[in-house]
Amino acid sequence: MTKQKLNIAMIGSGFIGKVHSNAFRQVGHFFDLPYELYLKVICGRNRAKLEAVAAHWGWEEVETDWRTIISRKDIDVVDIAVPNALHAPIAIAAAEAGKIVLCEKPLATSLEEAERMAKAVRRVPNLVWFNYRRVPAVAFAKQLIDQGRTGQPFHYRALYLNQSGNDPSKATGWRYKRSESGTGAAGDLFSHSIDLALYLNGPISELTAMTHTFAPDRDVDDAALLLARFSNGSIGSFEVSRYGVGCQNRNTFEINGSKGMLRFSLEDMNRLDFYDATETPNLQGSRSLMVTGPNHPYWEIFWKPGHAVGYEHPFIATLGDFLHSMAREETFHPNFEDALAVQRVLDALERSALSRNWVRLDGNQQ
Amino acid sequence: MTKQKLNIAMIGSGFIGKVHSNAFRQVGHFFDLPYELYLKVICGRNRAKLEAVAAHWGWEEVETDWRTIISRKDIDVVDIAVPNALHAPIAIAAAEAGKIVLCEKPLATSLEEAERMAKAVRRVPNLVWFNYRRVPAVAFAKQLIDQGRTGQPFHYRALYLNQSGNDPSKATGWRYKRSESGTGAAGDLFSHSIDLALYLNGPISELTAMTHTFAPDRDVDDAALLLARFSNGSIGSFEVSRYGVGCQNRNTFEINGSKGMLRFSLEDMNRLDFYDATETPNLQGSRSLMVTGPNHPYWEIFWKPGHAVGYEHPFIATLGDFLHSMAREETFHPNFEDALAVQRVLDALERSALSRNWVRLDGNQQ
Amino acid sequence: MTKQKLNIAMIGSGFIGKVHSNAFRQVGHFFDLPYELYLKVICGRNRAKLEAVAAHWGWEEVETDWRTIISRKDIDVVDIAVPNALHAPIAIAAAEAGKIVLCEKPLATSLEEAERMAKAVRRVPNLVWFNYRRVPAVAFAKQLIDQGRTGQPFHYRALYLNQSGNDPSKATGWRYKRSESGTGAAGDLFSHSIDLALYLNGPISELTAMTHTFAPDRDVDDAALLLARFSNGSIGSFEVSRYGVGCQNRNTFEINGSKGMLRFSLEDMNRLDFYDATETPNLQGSRSLMVTGPNHPYWEIFWKPGHAVGYEHPFIATLGDFLHSMAREETFHPNFEDALAVQRVLDALERSALSRNWVRLDGNQQ
Amino acid sequence: MTKQKLNIAMIGSGFIGKVHSNAFRQVGHFFDLPYELYLKVICGRNRAKLEAVAAHWGWEEVETDWRTIISRKDIDVVDIAVPNALHAPIAIAAAEAGKIVLCEKPLATSLEEAERMAKAVRRVPNLVWFNYRRVPAVAFAKQLIDQGRTGQPFHYRALYLNQSGNDPSKATGWRYKRSESGTGAAGDLFSHSIDLALYLNGPISELTAMTHTFAPDRDVDDAALLLARFSNGSIGSFEVSRYGVGCQNRNTFEINGSKGMLRFSLEDMNRLDFYDATETPNLQGSRSLMVTGPNHPYWEIFWKPGHAVGYEHPFIATLGDFLHSMAREETFHPNFEDALAVQRVLDALERSALSRNWVRLDGNQQ
Repeated sequence: MTKQKLNIAMIGSGFIGKVHSNAFRQVGHFFDLPYELYLKVICGRNRAKLEAVAAHWGWEEVETDWRTIISRKDIDVVDIAVPNALHAPIAIAAAEAGKIVLCEKPLATSLEEAERMAKAVRRVPNLVWFNYRRVPAVAFAKQLIDQGRTGQPFHYRALYLNQSGNDPSKATGWRYKRSESGTGAAGDLFSHSIDLALYLNGPISELTAMTHTFAPDRDVDDAALLLARFSNGSIGSFEVSRYGVGCQNRNTFEINGSKGMLRFSLEDMNRLDFYDATETPNLQGSRSLMVTGPNHPYWEIFWKPGHAVGYEHPFIATLGDFLHSMAREETFHPNFEDALAVQRVLDALERSALSRNWVRLDGNQQ
Repeated sequence: MTKQKLNIAMIGSGFIGKVHSNAFRQVGHFFDLPYELYLKVICGRNRAKLEAVAAHWGWEEVETDWRTIISRKDIDVVDIAVPNALHAPIAIAAAEAGKIVLCEKPLATSLEEAERMAKAVRRVPNLVWFNYRRVPAVAFAKQLIDQGRTGQPFHYRALYLNQSGNDPSKATGWRYKRSESGTGAAGDLFSHSIDLALYLNGPISELTAMTHTFAPDRDVDDAALLLARFSNGSIGSFEVSRYGVGCQNRNTFEINGSKGMLRFSLEDMNRLDFYDATETPNLQGSRSLMVTGPNHPYWEIFWKPGHAVGYEHPFIATLGDFLHSMAREETFHPNFEDALAVQRVLDALERSALSRNWVRLDGNQQ
Repeated sequence: MTKQKLNIAMIGSGFIGKVHSNAFRQVGHFFDLPYELYLKVICGRNRAKLEAVAAHWGWEEVETDWRTIISRKDIDVVDIAVPNALHAPIAIAAAEAGKIVLCEKPLATSLEEAERMAKAVRRVPNLVWFNYRRVPAVAFAKQLIDQGRTGQPFHYRALYLNQSGNDPSKATGWRYKRSESGTGAAGDLFSHSIDLALYLNGPISELTAMTHTFAPDRDVDDAALLLARFSNGSIGSFEVSRYGVGCQNRNTFEINGSKGMLRFSLEDMNRLDFYDATETPNLQGSRSLMVTGPNHPYWEIFWKPGHAVGYEHPFIATLGDFLHSMAREETFHPNFEDALAVQRVLDALERSALSRNWVRLDGNQQ
Repeated sequence: MTKQKLNIAMIGSGFIGKVHSNAFRQVGHFFDLPYELYLKVICGRNRAKLEAVAAHWGWEEVETDWRTIISRKDIDVVDIAVPNALHAPIAIAAAEAGKIVLCEKPLATSLEEAERMAKAVRRVPNLVWFNYRRVPAVAFAKQLIDQGRTGQPFHYRALYLNQSGNDPSKATGWRYKRSESGTGAAGDLFSHSIDLALYLNGPISELTAMTHTFAPDRDVDDAALLLARFSNGSIGSFEVSRYGVGCQNRNTFEINGSKGMLRFSLEDMNRLDFYDATETPNLQGSRSLMVTGPNHPYWEIFWKPGHAVGYEHPFIATLGDFLHSMAREETFHPNFEDALAVQRVLDALERSALSRNWVRLDGNQQ
């Protein structure tokens, strides 16, 4: 039986382009794919850099104009890995040309853009790279919640702290410019925290927030704090910052429910802490699960129990699940609709920070 | 040389009365005291229970009417360890009678009460039992901050989570009734978090907050969340809850500054995490200090380096420092003024939770 | 009902004398004692120091000749807290005079001494201060083992590491001289590790060992390593050192059994790690128990759940249990017989280190 | 400039074959390679399984007779990933045919075999897959030691514990049969521990050891314990077991030296604990380094600082370094000579376990 071929075009050649290239290269090694993937063309502005990346990762061609990509009949998949301000024009054009569209997060630089994008992709398979949903430990947390192991939800608590802003040599580039990124830490880091919150704990019904810029000459936020009420009756606290000195990639969540607690930190991504409050009281304690199998998400896909996965594996898992989902003609998550829900929260965050008031959401984030 | 004698009366005979009795008994074993303490009389409502406590801890007499205590000429020190609603009448009467006044936290059930109390004690030595300032690890954190080891402050982050509210068998008693406690988790737990924040990071200039009650029939808050701006330019996030399932006594703070990070949790009270951001980058990591000496606060007072202190030692240290401070005629901290500053924040918290708006403070919390 | 009075004499006034004084002072505050204790006399060589300690802790009298103590009719209890070489003469004399005898560990400087001591005390209540058995977390480990929660024992693993030897300013005093201590790290640290092993995992049937002295001019061992076979079929590994740089008081044990694992470290003495290998495989993980209640050893004696105990509490618990045991005319453990069992292992250790051979024990260590 | 092509044959198609296939596929994505690699042929006994693996990982051909591989002129590299008993015949034949030889660990089933193998490969580039040397955290530990950051070495301490033996459903296969594996836990796990010890702490001069088999019907060891003296004056303790219930892949080492401590556990492979004993005493604590950059081994090869690597990355790093080393005509480590040194220790271990005596080594393990 011959598998359908998919020609992939990736737009972007920076760090995240390397991560996506790896996912395209690796997905077929771990998953039994319903498609054959071809790394057809990589697109970017700097031809020399493009050619180096293409040589390394085996992209067949390079291209410097993304519009040319869109117009090519032989391209099936457009993967968008460029600064945020370019997501909308490329995604919309690609969707209108009937391409399968994969897009980096955050989806857009504004809610209006995100709404147009979500509308545009309705008829094509689409994905947004909120990859942390598929860290095995996070996917396992979701299973435990769905099985009722945490019970009635009381608290959701999330941090995303790094120290990039405190390092003058690093805090440059498009992520620190409103014109290219839309927001600062809010879009970059908070979008991840919000996506996980909506995924694990459901819609937010109202929030109040503040943002802060520590650097004197910067036009985006360096940190954002947010309090929330969720539709499920729980209350939430969020904090993201590029001035979280001492933290390198501290993307965490904690859930306290009537039956237990869950805790995760991306800095120890192969672990999930679980406290079972239904145990005999004197044996209750936070247990550190190595979520590498047996019977954990992706444990038969990647390595053996006790053998860690790394940063790239959630990307591979996202892509593998997406391709299977597409073959079965099912809706994949997280998609543009999911990312739009995140954008609604980011928009509410910004409005609340500006107005210094609580902002209601319609709860339709999922 | 004969030391001055101090006759002590303790009002209250519950758990915290046991803790204070222990402090009175132990302080002279560890500190070279400028006074001789006599455990003269313990006062409470239940004579049988009082006699049992008196026998155990060596209180000379028992008494069931606190007013009698106040009127006794031979009593030098009145220690208040009763439900919050009784703090004000006892403290004010004691101060007016010229007694040295020690009072449990939170100081009062309202800001108005707290103001009257602070005014009343102005002429007598006074102390409020915010004992966590003198956990050796916390006192050492303060030293490091004062020495500039954390640099310009960016973030202050505090939790105080336990799971008492989730246990129907426990969630009774005066702490769960507004008439006796004034507030719920806010007063009980938040007062500790706020006192440490003001001590370590200085005054709060504005805040927004929410409170929540999970139990259907309870008239006090079960949880409170708060965002703050501090006068020193840093921003803060606070969360306290009696529904923090999985947490037993998780009183934590974290500070991110331009030069380093500090982290503390009362559940591991002999440890302080310190991240030195001025180290060679590849050797930067969060180091776990056992704050038991050498050259840590109280290390020559209690045990040897490597030997843990427990829950009671900060009370002993508080009392020891207070007595020395009194002998030197210096102002001791935390006193009623410090506790009044905490009460101002608690009051602002309540107003903000009610109005759903940011509330400004005059910054005079210290 | 009048309680019987016990007049206590403590011989020794160093650091451990402070710890014992504290236990005598505190035991009646936490335990309902069957006796009334009187801190009658403290004995040592330096009268000025003795008087200071006596003033601090309330010893009625001071004395510089321990033989005088023994000959006093009014002394009921003799507590020995002096360098090891003095344990035997004092304990034997005290026992022969019919005193209740408490003795610091290690019991003796040689097996022969220990045998004479154990024989001498047979008719009097006796105790050896292997206090770590009564760290609540250790006592709880013992309960879990006895309940079969760890199953068939496979491995026992113990460390006792500190860095005292690496600090030239500290590594002096009697603990570093064979004439006063008998051994070095072996007696000082290993005796604790062995006592816990025999308590938790039963008798050792054979062992091989090595000792090592890092300091050029020292006549006692700085470190000792030992491999063992236990009578219960498990195998063991032990290491103690005063050159464990980076470790302050790292007294640990780990047990791997067919049904679970236990791990303890004195540096985090309020915690016990428990891995339940009978759980659903994907929920198996090492859980960190805060052994402060509910339903943990001593939880109603000391503070509330979630409130830590410190270094001194196991001493208090040891004394409290001893006094109750004596009142019930039961044999208390750990006593001189238990300490003799430890001494047999220490003796075997030394013989093995010398002969470089395995040494068999008769398995009668308990 | 055209790169030299290398045709690779891999013999073996089990789990470790998957890991090697991944390394061959990935090495060129991360390293700028001096060669072009072709995954030419995969060899094994089961054709159907071979074809599945070949399809997944892109091996051009399959083959069921390893001798055919050796005789092929077009094969440049032979990679041996089969049960231990086959290592010697394949490696020797491959080397004699002038192939570049890569071999899984442990090198051999006996010292005699290992010596013949090491001799056979002398003229060809060769590598043994002791991949853990190139875990970034381990490689960084080596740098710190070489820079003198740990000072004079006192103690080396290693564990390798998993629980595979305790699971009747798992404890089958060639690893549990002497005829195919040579040894049990000793060869499988201890070889890793020994290789790291020799790499990080230098040659062992003498040792005493014991082995134990818990399963009644098994002809290989389930656990092995060993005490050692190193040529550098430090002393060591080792324990490996397949009955380390509660441990999944706990490959650890600890080093105590006059200036500091290092600790590593494979279960948290992106971290290295470092204690700097030259710091101000009250700031000394074990710091947890995330060894993901900046300025850590391989940090520019793999992901960004704060982004974890997984189980497969050390294999990729080993291969990348080997190829560069070969291009520069340098001797690569770990090679067959290094693995022979490990085998000498394993042989001494077995002899000591049998004779129950200390065994001297000539110290020429490196």
